[in-house]
Amino acid sequence: MINKKMGNKEFNFEERLIKSKEVFRGKLLKLTVSEVKLPDKNVTEREVVSHPGAVAIVPMTSHNEVVMVRQYRFAVGKHTLELPAGTLEEGEKPIICAKRELEEEIQVRANKWKKLISIYPSPGYCNEIIHIYLAKELEDLSKAGNKGENFKDVQNNIKNIRKSQVKVKKSEKDEFINRVIIPLKEVKDKILNGEIMDAKTIVGITI
Amino acid sequence: MINKKMGNKEFNFEERLIKSKEVFRGKLLKLTVSEVKLPDKNVTEREVVSHPGAVAIVPMTSHNEVVMVRQYRFAVGKHTLELPAGTLEEGEKPIICAKRELEEEIQVRANKWKKLISIYPSPGYCNEIIHIYLAKELEDLSKAGNKGENFKDVQNNIKNIRKSQVKVKKSEKDEFINRVIIPLKEVKDKILNGEIMDAKTIVGITI
Repeated sequence: MINKKMGNKEFNFEERLIKSKEVFRGKLLKLTVSEVKLPDKNVTEREVVSHPGAVAIVPMTSHNEVVMVRQYRFAVGKHTLELPAGTLEEGEKPIICAKRELEEEIQVRANKWKKLISIYPSPGYCNEIIHIYLAKELEDLSKAGNKGENFKDVQNNIKNIRKSQVKVKKSEKDEFINRVIIPLKEVKDKILNGEIMDAKTIVGITI
Repeated sequence: MINKKMGNKEFNFEERLIKSKEVFRGKLLKLTVSEVKLPDKNVTEREVVSHPGAVAIVPMTSHNEVVMVRQYRFAVGKHTLELPAGTLEEGEKPIICAKRELEEEIQVRANKWKKLISIYPSPGYCNEIIHIYLAKELEDLSKAGNKGENFKDVQNNIKNIRKSQVKVKKSEKDEFINRVIIPLKEVKDKILNGEIMDAKTIVGITI
């Protein structure tokens, strides 16, 4: 196997599954330990986290601002500033999930959508794929019930970022989120100065 | 808690640990389920993957090419093209790990190092942090034993990417890696056309 070349002259290092054991199944994650055969016929174990997949959205206002979320991330023990994002429900198409999450998580509806990229956050040990979308022509559903209000109008009335904050507790979910609107230039500064460290957010903004 | 404002007028959504249970401990990963108290005093569970942390390196030749690795990733079931990277050993400083991994993984030594950024690949459920470095003034240790050879000289002798491939089996590790040298412009094209999907690689190249 190790010396077999592919049509494109690249080596094939595929690892063949021998057997697999599920060691944990939780609400979000599943963890499996698999015995695999390596290209040199030796055997090793791979620990794999299974995740349903996710979406992230870059919601851009007509003023070149990004609607982001500030939330507490228990796994890293701090508040983070990230793009709105969410986990795919079973069988859910990514674009449908993105539209749903934008409404549920930050109470925004977008009329223009564009797929940017799909990424693997941790291909070494996790099968999660994150689909990232650009969303434009935003309506703010947090005003006036569900009627919607053009973001441009909302923004003309606000003096600074802080006043645009909306605190959201997602219904039936254990997520507490602080919606913030930040000029794209400032978001880029926050990436360079280390305030934003979330991979999907950095990819969505810099791609 | 939910209405308490911080000094900077941002909401504090911190989640307090009540109790924690380790449900898996493997060679690489640990998985813990923690009971936490939410800002509204309700209680929920957080599934957290613990990872030792990692480094990734952008090794740039004097010809504006990137030395990358092609390998099979069992977790996502395919060969990927990524920056050289590796896991921190216990107590190891990231820059030391980066230098070690560059030599071990792709047999390259760099004389100029610069920290680019640190990222969380999956802050929603994993504590892994990846430190990304730019490495320049490269020496190719795969030639002439450990004496080293300037990459510029090596490259003057090669006709195309394929000839620069070195197949490496990392000693005492179960990793099979194919070293490839690709012009930066081509790497960026491969990100945009979806061939490169690894988050740390995209961040290291586009930042």
